[in-house]
Amino acid sequence: MLVQAAGFDPRDPEAAIAATARAVSNWGRWGEDDAVGTLNLIDDRARARAAALVRTGESISLSLPFDMDGPQKGWRRRTNPVHTMLDTGTDAEAGVQGFPHGIGGADDVIAMPLQCSTQWDGLGHIFDHGAAWNGRRAGDVVTSLGDGVTGIENAASLITGRGVLLDLGRHLRPDAGELEDGYAISAADLDSCIAAQGPTSTVGAGDIVVVRTGQLTRARRDGWGDYAGGAAPGLSFTTAPWLHARNIAAIATDTWGFEVRPNEFEPAFQPLHQVVIPHMGLTIGEMWDLDTLAEACAASSRYEFLMVAAPLRITGAVGSPVNPIALL
Amino acid sequence: MLVQAAGFDPRDPEAAIAATARAVSNWGRWGEDDAVGTLNLIDDRARARAAALVRTGESISLSLPFDMDGPQKGWRRRTNPVHTMLDTGTDAEAGVQGFPHGIGGADDVIAMPLQCSTQWDGLGHIFDHGAAWNGRRAGDVVTSLGDGVTGIENAASLITGRGVLLDLGRHLRPDAGELEDGYAISAADLDSCIAAQGPTSTVGAGDIVVVRTGQLTRARRDGWGDYAGGAAPGLSFTTAPWLHARNIAAIATDTWGFEVRPNEFEPAFQPLHQVVIPHMGLTIGEMWDLDTLAEACAASSRYEFLMVAAPLRITGAVGSPVNPIALL
Amino acid sequence: MLVQAAGFDPRDPEAAIAATARAVSNWGRWGEDDAVGTLNLIDDRARARAAALVRTGESISLSLPFDMDGPQKGWRRRTNPVHTMLDTGTDAEAGVQGFPHGIGGADDVIAMPLQCSTQWDGLGHIFDHGAAWNGRRAGDVVTSLGDGVTGIENAASLITGRGVLLDLGRHLRPDAGELEDGYAISAADLDSCIAAQGPTSTVGAGDIVVVRTGQLTRARRDGWGDYAGGAAPGLSFTTAPWLHARNIAAIATDTWGFEVRPNEFEPAFQPLHQVVIPHMGLTIGEMWDLDTLAEACAASSRYEFLMVAAPLRITGAVGSPVNPIALL
Amino acid sequence: MLVQAAGFDPRDPEAAIAATARAVSNWGRWGEDDAVGTLNLIDDRARARAAALVRTGESISLSLPFDMDGPQKGWRRRTNPVHTMLDTGTDAEAGVQGFPHGIGGADDVIAMPLQCSTQWDGLGHIFDHGAAWNGRRAGDVVTSLGDGVTGIENAASLITGRGVLLDLGRHLRPDAGELEDGYAISAADLDSCIAAQGPTSTVGAGDIVVVRTGQLTRARRDGWGDYAGGAAPGLSFTTAPWLHARNIAAIATDTWGFEVRPNEFEPAFQPLHQVVIPHMGLTIGEMWDLDTLAEACAASSRYEFLMVAAPLRITGAVGSPVNPIALL
Repeated sequence: MLVQAAGFDPRDPEAAIAATARAVSNWGRWGEDDAVGTLNLIDDRARARAAALVRTGESISLSLPFDMDGPQKGWRRRTNPVHTMLDTGTDAEAGVQGFPHGIGGADDVIAMPLQCSTQWDGLGHIFDHGAAWNGRRAGDVVTSLGDGVTGIENAASLITGRGVLLDLGRHLRPDAGELEDGYAISAADLDSCIAAQGPTSTVGAGDIVVVRTGQLTRARRDGWGDYAGGAAPGLSFTTAPWLHARNIAAIATDTWGFEVRPNEFEPAFQPLHQVVIPHMGLTIGEMWDLDTLAEACAASSRYEFLMVAAPLRITGAVGSPVNPIALL
Repeated sequence: MLVQAAGFDPRDPEAAIAATARAVSNWGRWGEDDAVGTLNLIDDRARARAAALVRTGESISLSLPFDMDGPQKGWRRRTNPVHTMLDTGTDAEAGVQGFPHGIGGADDVIAMPLQCSTQWDGLGHIFDHGAAWNGRRAGDVVTSLGDGVTGIENAASLITGRGVLLDLGRHLRPDAGELEDGYAISAADLDSCIAAQGPTSTVGAGDIVVVRTGQLTRARRDGWGDYAGGAAPGLSFTTAPWLHARNIAAIATDTWGFEVRPNEFEPAFQPLHQVVIPHMGLTIGEMWDLDTLAEACAASSRYEFLMVAAPLRITGAVGSPVNPIALL
Repeated sequence: MLVQAAGFDPRDPEAAIAATARAVSNWGRWGEDDAVGTLNLIDDRARARAAALVRTGESISLSLPFDMDGPQKGWRRRTNPVHTMLDTGTDAEAGVQGFPHGIGGADDVIAMPLQCSTQWDGLGHIFDHGAAWNGRRAGDVVTSLGDGVTGIENAASLITGRGVLLDLGRHLRPDAGELEDGYAISAADLDSCIAAQGPTSTVGAGDIVVVRTGQLTRARRDGWGDYAGGAAPGLSFTTAPWLHARNIAAIATDTWGFEVRPNEFEPAFQPLHQVVIPHMGLTIGEMWDLDTLAEACAASSRYEFLMVAAPLRITGAVGSPVNPIALL
Repeated sequence: MLVQAAGFDPRDPEAAIAATARAVSNWGRWGEDDAVGTLNLIDDRARARAAALVRTGESISLSLPFDMDGPQKGWRRRTNPVHTMLDTGTDAEAGVQGFPHGIGGADDVIAMPLQCSTQWDGLGHIFDHGAAWNGRRAGDVVTSLGDGVTGIENAASLITGRGVLLDLGRHLRPDAGELEDGYAISAADLDSCIAAQGPTSTVGAGDIVVVRTGQLTRARRDGWGDYAGGAAPGLSFTTAPWLHARNIAAIATDTWGFEVRPNEFEPAFQPLHQVVIPHMGLTIGEMWDLDTLAEACAASSRYEFLMVAAPLRITGAVGSPVNPIALL
């Protein structure tokens, strides 16, 4: 049992979280005023090197469709995106728009939770006992007016760098290509995946790591079911030191919640989030569609690429929808 | 008078639009089923070449902030984005969230017009006498359910390529760096800007051209005023053939409406849109913040870069907010 | 079989609808410009008489709660209401609001379909072969800008009058108090209910009739299930002439869709709506909670009361949430 | 100077608010668990008497239109209502809806602040030094999840009773019919208005008082200007004891903010709210359109009527849009 192997008692999440938080804390590492955490680990030189990885120029979107057919079922008021029209082509054809010289238009609006589909979690998204990233008090950071300190707008230009795909689904389950729900990906799994995929998948400082579990492949085939919050493969709580030691800039998965569910403690709710967001300052992506990318990487045996995954510049947001682009 | 020079009668927009539409039409060029227009002009090789332009690795976001301090004033129900919280740090600190082991969270939603701030116009955004891109009927394309044919999701992975900045503000008004409202940028202006900026600003097939007028610089200094729909510098209606001949993939400006306002006909409403979207299939960006990019380009005398400007993958949308990234 | 008894062929909905529409049409009855249909049948004298029905002064709300625990499941983008806070008490206590002299505040917003819960259907809600109420073309009435002719704002002051409860659930199923899903309430059922309930439930000109099936009682007990659009008890298509002949002003039920589901034709979708809204001009209420009212009426054996059910004055709406008040 | 006359120092709002709060407090009056405050003062007998006031049956809506032409300008993210269509008549005519047998439909959604237009303030809307109605802590009442204790749903069936119009505009300014911005209505003004209007305007226990200043009349004529938050006539802070002594159930005005603006202290923000909502438990209505009602009352010299002003039953809301109906 991984958690026990690492010395954690599954019946005592508080102690495990506290110990791990101390071990992986980056508080103060980038100064008292820091608002972007591990995104500091990508510098311009790293971005230039990442751009040099581009070979074929193939551009792959890692975004799910944003529409009413998404996975949300209302948990904590999270709905699927509601997209409605302000003007339409039927109106234009009917001649009711009142514009001159035959011009007609269509226009639209959207109402959506910022974390309804393919997304980044901002640093203000999760707190540990009232503490936010870099040791601030949660209530000093995120009020009803939004995140006044670490809002996602701070990351607007930063999430561009070397992307690395770790296809745990294909690696651990070569036949199915999918991890089963409840499978906790361990640090050893990550290492063996890297070893198997070869040198283009080495993970280092400033990398944006994308972990494919295959759960989304299954949801696409079988229906969403409880994809939003139910059982899922994902990272084990015990991977926190691994993530910290490698100095990655960001990480994303093809699941709703990044970490394994049910979580490894009892009771528990997203304990790995509780450590890596407020203590490590790690930006996490969720519900990324990694299937096309995984096929391309498998075909070329190259698992590194230029990743540009710019969040919307929403002032004070604690998360953002994103259309991540992998440029191969 | 430019329009007259090109043989257009400013009192007869219908005739000018029809003649220009015929001259620049791309209908059928990429087959009957095409849904992305000039974005076809970026291929993988072009993307690979664009990636090779990256030198310093500097990453610049061309997005305005998305918040209530934006330019919208309610025209055709366009508001500024309304961002509200589902959960907050003050709640987390107050201990009212009901999660176990000290985890707390913040979460948020947004309601916004898709064209409220930095954005792409999709191909379903504008019609000419009931005709949409590629000759389809507007009502067959965009209904209340959205754009069922040319929705912005079709462009999700495509808008990555060589970006070129044409800084008309600095070029034509070296002292102020800003064009005056109502100034119509001509094809000759574009050519002289390219000549003055040098070979890194040559415009060719598949390029994503960004035109800085300086109006946004002024709005930032003086307040939004009538930025959303009022007088503005912008492209002249007469530039349509220039845009067509160069086979650009997309174009964006730092103004609300891309083209000069007041428009060059009387009466008129966005006649250049009426030609280049439904007839040429051109994707247009608006309200892009080009000031930081312009400073960087001026400093380095290099006006080309890798541009990644992926729209949100909103099914059936006729536009999308975007955080365009220029990688220098 | 009721439909057949009335001479309708269940395999030919078009013919049945056309014949019934002719029989019950009110087109022109209140002039060419009419925008409120049968609401014309309530006049001030009727309202004064209705007020005189008040005995005990008991006030009963017939509204469901508006929240995320509602029946909607996403059909045609209908969600449950999403209510979010702009300011909170936790913020006020945390002292982050910036107001003087100790004042603090909470404020909120809502995003919701106008027909997500207890509601009125406006006259622009349903069309028959492109025809709207009073013989107008649907496209001349309701565009993307809303209902420019028969918007719900026209009814803002009108829906006040004599209410009559017909408790079909108790009448037809005295033990259960609930009609089974798929039960089509016939004109004979309505008449026998009136006869059984006694003279206070006589239905006449200008009345606002509320029909309790008991389905909501069941949904409250067993969960929403397919309440929103699934099988339900409701009025038979064959009741249209009965509704017309009695000159009622409006009618409401405790079900999602007013009429029996599955509908009585094959294929069919809400054929009674197709007749009574565009042809009769009848205002229909849905998802009304009639249980408390039903208990009060049963206890007093009085089934008439003052009904005030004012829609929100939303310009151009084709429906409105409502909190109907029965004053007994 | 009224404030001084009452012994208040305009430079010391804290002291004045504290003293007045003590004087008018209703904490505990209706038990520890009370969630509706002065609405307790309307009982069924009062409602029955109110219904007996109805003479002509004239029904008057006191609601403004809910649309984009409203007064909001973005203060604290308050917008005007954004009403969009899910389905339209143009679509129905175009035959694109996919329904059988010729039925077509229109449907719509709304996104709006609950206090964007004609509205009730709920008891969770305002706090005094972190204290909410009945002595609760603000953070124990209103979180990001809404008002869990005194949500507007508690008032769903209660706001039906005797309405009394006090037309201060006509009374104090017989020629103009409108009070000037900044005019503070005093208790003496209220008394003299009642005396002038005659016995039908006597104010007593359980009454719903509507105070017309005429500012809305002016805004309708001259444009909204700073109606939302700017200078306005309104109740003086010094009227709190008057409101308390008369045991009214609720009060509403035709202004944005109920009380005079600029407020009577320096600095100040809505000090009368700070006293009457959390301490007195008074439900306040704002932005009510009283002009038609005022004309009717003036014509008949009767200022009392049945008032039904049911808020939407939005769970946890701290305010609600409302369409108040006066039945004369």
